[in-house]
Amino acid sequence: MANDVFTNPFTRICGIDPGLGCTGYGILELKRGEPVVIEAGVLRPGGTDEPLPERLRALGESLDELLSEHRPEAVAVEQIYAHYKHPRTAILMGHARGVILMTAAKHALPVIDLPATMVKRHLTGSGHASKQQVQKLIARTLGLATCPEPPDVADALAIALCALHKREKMHAPSARLRTSARK
Amino acid sequence: MANDVFTNPFTRICGIDPGLGCTGYGILELKRGEPVVIEAGVLRPGGTDEPLPERLRALGESLDELLSEHRPEAVAVEQIYAHYKHPRTAILMGHARGVILMTAAKHALPVIDLPATMVKRHLTGSGHASKQQVQKLIARTLGLATCPEPPDVADALAIALCALHKREKMHAPSARLRTSARK
Repeated sequence: MANDVFTNPFTRICGIDPGLGCTGYGILELKRGEPVVIEAGVLRPGGTDEPLPERLRALGESLDELLSEHRPEAVAVEQIYAHYKHPRTAILMGHARGVILMTAAKHALPVIDLPATMVKRHLTGSGHASKQQVQKLIARTLGLATCPEPPDVADALAIALCALHKREKMHAPSARLRTSARK
Repeated sequence: MANDVFTNPFTRICGIDPGLGCTGYGILELKRGEPVVIEAGVLRPGGTDEPLPERLRALGESLDELLSEHRPEAVAVEQIYAHYKHPRTAILMGHARGVILMTAAKHALPVIDLPATMVKRHLTGSGHASKQQVQKLIARTLGLATCPEPPDVADALAIALCALHKREKMHAPSARLRTSARK
């Protein structure tokens, strides 16, 4: 399924930045060749005092509702580093990511897996850009009046944008911004 | 929810050994103070050639059916090591475990988290017992004619048994077996 995603056309995509405390999402649609934000925000699966199973259930349900409401044609999610500095965090992120992938499959949506460094490099020209750089560049590229907050929302929009660009083989915004800066 | 599990009575429990290729499960019930196997087996969420989201969806659905059919009162799952030797495997296991915990919460079941070493030590007297030792001891303790195969089933039964014993504050089978061996 996921293998066909770059050959099957899609114009509306949901980018997701998985987290247990806060999962960012951003739904983008290509309109006349330009990406437009349909909706973006965070899914907050309960407080940190809630038991993990309950938070995962809430995350699954919120995402289920989001996908039913906005009907994207694909979901793009960041890969988790295998050599993560914090193995416990990576494993917990894996729990949230598992629920996200399962929910995407329930909606029969193809899933695009993107490494965080590819997303950052594609947008900013550097695989190690800061959260603030991603926020600023996402706001400029998508014509948003303010930087998306919290940074998880900008990250989710960045993932969605990168997947759309890869699909459409469009120029990266970093390249476009560098060009316009040179003018 | 999970905090109340050792104060709330339960007699039927589903032990789960999470895996992506094969998730073992074992449902035990205390009957006249003795644990009896209600059902045990493996959930095989698709082949390894299936995309991960699809396998997670299949895992969630199979577990959903299992819990609906056998209505255990609690679910017991092994913890994943934070300092796992194979971080990629641990993260992938986290994906499966996330779906399992979410499904338990959907059924409003308390989840008991047990470290693998505690389960092994409780059963065999050693936290580093081999899979074969766990299989043999589970077969003896539960009066099974043959060792549960694959080992994932024995592991799941071991988790369920350990959770039941902890709940009932019963003697560990290793202690009982050592006593009977001495007779």
